[in-house]
Parts: sequence; C-alpha cells; structure tokens
Amino acid sequence: MLDYTSWVFKLIALFGYPADPIEFETRWSGEFVPLAEQMPGLRRVVVGRIEGGPAGPAPFHLAHELFFDNREALMAAMTSPEGTAAAQCLMSFAPGVVTLMFGEHLEEVRQ
Amino acid sequence: MLDYTSWVFKLIALFGYPADPIEFETRWSGEFVPLAEQMPGLRRVVVGRIEGGPAGPAPFHLAHELFFDNREALMAAMTSPEGTAAAQCLMSFAPGVVTLMFGEHLEEVRQ
Repeated sequence: MLDYTSWVFKLIALFGYPADPIEFETRWSGEFVPLAEQMPGLRRVVVGRIEGGPAGPAPFHLAHELFFDNREALMAAMTSPEGTAAAQCLMSFAPGVVTLMFGEHLEEVRQ
Repeated sequence: MLDYTSWVFKLIALFGYPADPIEFETRWSGEFVPLAEQMPGLRRVVVGRIEGGPAGPAPFHLAHELFFDNREALMAAMTSPEGTAAAQCLMSFAPGVVTLMFGEHLEEVRQ
C-alpha cells in the first residue's frame, strides 16, 4: 500500500548525452548547480547518476531534481531573478540536451 | 554546496503517454505497483506525477522510482521471482511507453 509521507512539488531536469561530457559536467556542476541552489524556497536537491537500463544504454545520464513546498513556490522560484539566471545558464550549455518537467512528488518510506 | 546525506541505488520507470490513460492507470496502480512492492530489498518508493514543463507538455507523465540499498540489492531484486513477475506485468501493458533506467541517487536536504 502506498502510504505517502510527503507530497511536495519538484522541478526535474533530465539530461541526455552531451557532445562534450567533460565540458557539460564542468558547467553543470560548476555553474548551473550553484545558481540553481540560490533559487528562493528550494528545500531539497536530488541528483540521479544514471548508469543505464535493463536493456542497455538509457536515454538520459543525469536527473537533477529541485524540491519546493508546493506548485506556487516552484513557480515563484522559476520566475525569480535567481531562477531566471539559472535558466539562462542552463540554456547556454545544455540546449537540446535537457528536458525540464515539473510535478507532484509522492513518497513512501517502507518500514 | 552539495553535502549529500544519502547515496543509494534506484530503478526509475519513466512513463510516456499511453493510448488509453484510464486503462494504463488501472493496470499500473492495480497490478504493477502491488507486484513491484513485493520485490525483496525495496526500501522506498517515489511517484512523480508530472504535469508538464516550462515550455508546455512534457514527454513523460509519470516517474516511478524504487529504491534499494545498493546496486547489488537492485540487481538481486530485478532477477528475483517477484522482480520477474513485476517486469512481465509491466511489459504486458506498457511496452513502448516505459523507459527503465537505474543509477545512483544522491540527496541533499537543505537546512
């Protein structure tokens, strides 16, 4: 049974494989992450380092998630000066590589 | 600064838009979730209900994540009878709709 203990809202950035993996990692971790972390209302950060899938390579290598209290907090963060700066940074090195999505996050921790 | 408090391994199932959303939801929640929850070593479940993206529709509507202590635990779960049954169930209603991936999950909870 899914007895969820939290219900929050998150922004998900899924990254495909960039042409230059080293430049991508440098700019993502060195430029984008510090800007994204300044977004107002940010509560939690998750980074998924995707290795592959059961059938072989996966279409994404990185899943970066930013958590907010609710939809309104995320929208406010995205339109804030900090959010705008983070988005501009992202589009300077990851256009065509990043898929941005947002939605509700429901979580169950098992006993 | 990313001062991670956990480092575990997870299976991510990303679901695109099915031809019949009601049948999909019925079979995912009523058949797949109960089977997946029986996988040995499962520690935590996350469900992301994706609403869209900044530029409009997102390519996925659902992100279902299953957490395990480490890579070995996930691989053992996937090859267990419970994991095999869950995978067979998944492929009976979501082929072409699901993208399966796995990797390390790093998490930071902000102060």
